[in-house]
Amino acid sequence: MALLDEAAPGAGVVVFDAYGTLFDVHAAVARHAGAIGPDASALSDVWRAKQLEYSWVLSLYGDFRDFWQLTREALDHALARFPSVDRAIADKLLGAYRVLDAYEEVPAVLAALKAGGLATAILSNGERSMLADAVASAGIGEHLDAVLSVDEVRVFKTSPTAYALVTRRFGIEPAQAVFVSSNRWDVAGAARFGFRAVWVNRAGAPDEYADQRPVAIVRDLNGLV
Amino acid sequence: MALLDEAAPGAGVVVFDAYGTLFDVHAAVARHAGAIGPDASALSDVWRAKQLEYSWVLSLYGDFRDFWQLTREALDHALARFPSVDRAIADKLLGAYRVLDAYEEVPAVLAALKAGGLATAILSNGERSMLADAVASAGIGEHLDAVLSVDEVRVFKTSPTAYALVTRRFGIEPAQAVFVSSNRWDVAGAARFGFRAVWVNRAGAPDEYADQRPVAIVRDLNGLV
Repeated sequence: MALLDEAAPGAGVVVFDAYGTLFDVHAAVARHAGAIGPDASALSDVWRAKQLEYSWVLSLYGDFRDFWQLTREALDHALARFPSVDRAIADKLLGAYRVLDAYEEVPAVLAALKAGGLATAILSNGERSMLADAVASAGIGEHLDAVLSVDEVRVFKTSPTAYALVTRRFGIEPAQAVFVSSNRWDVAGAARFGFRAVWVNRAGAPDEYADQRPVAIVRDLNGLV
Repeated sequence: MALLDEAAPGAGVVVFDAYGTLFDVHAAVARHAGAIGPDASALSDVWRAKQLEYSWVLSLYGDFRDFWQLTREALDHALARFPSVDRAIADKLLGAYRVLDAYEEVPAVLAALKAGGLATAILSNGERSMLADAVASAGIGEHLDAVLSVDEVRVFKTSPTAYALVTRRFGIEPAQAVFVSSNRWDVAGAARFGFRAVWVNRAGAPDEYADQRPVAIVRDLNGLV
């Protein structure tokens, strides 16, 4: 727990974003890349970008549809943008999205955190049943004390109402939680809320949100333990 | 005014989004494409995507920095993503962004709307001085009754607080305004607010936001008159 001891002394709860952080959001398209063809990577990028855009735009005008619905709508739009791709692939991609690959270090890291006496949780935009499927598929349920979905509050991150699900569930102040995300915008939202945010920068991306910095940056989840 | 008469009978105010709708946001990079090199188009896309992401993410967690600041931060990030591009181009790109090309039909369409007895306005995320520069550079100030910036309310579209600048300024109900935007997310926000939204779909993009439809779709602003 060296990093957590140094960067977040006294933290008792480690909370993970799910999509992009524990689960590889591009794994669904990767699994069917051959059938999709040369636009596979671009399709995956548009699918992800639109999923996020919808979550922010709807939240900002006070509407909500769950993340599974937004995931379907984003895929519909992405497929319409790439006419070369056979739309019959949609059902396969959505099926694959429910059982996304977890990054390989995830189970061992979660187990180590639990063994170190920390509570662990997911806080995700994901709709409850898609989260349950992903957690079960990755076999990580036993290492998690809570799986929290914004379904409960019907507003997406980066609304503070979404992050407050954690403090309410564990009865803690924001600074008592470490929040771990690969999504830099989510790190910013978590830091703004008062969490000790850790950025998992797998791709070595340049930094942004300079006024909302993480307490630590790691290359993958092994950097936490 | 055939389209406006049919799609929005009784509308007295026509409100335009600025960036992407009246002004070509990719004109800044296009002007320096030679100096930028092969990543010019990708750089422009990331610049625009990050500018929008920041506007939504900050608004959702209750923060605000003006759109000029976000434009600078987004460019910094985009340049860091494309190391092949000489960062010394930043000042030139920002300079060009303040005098973006207006789409060619813009002045004549605004003049025709005014001649038809309608009030015209801009409602933009843009910071006041950058908007003033763009309007002056395009020579369209005389055709506009109001240039409204979200600076006044310190929250970006798609917050209803941003759209309400129009109804407050003109003393009207939302349904009395036609809101024209090339940005489909902005059309959705405007429709949700109650404006009669028109989508300028210059690129022939597939539709999205199926529950927040425009009253009309036009290929360019000539479709309004």
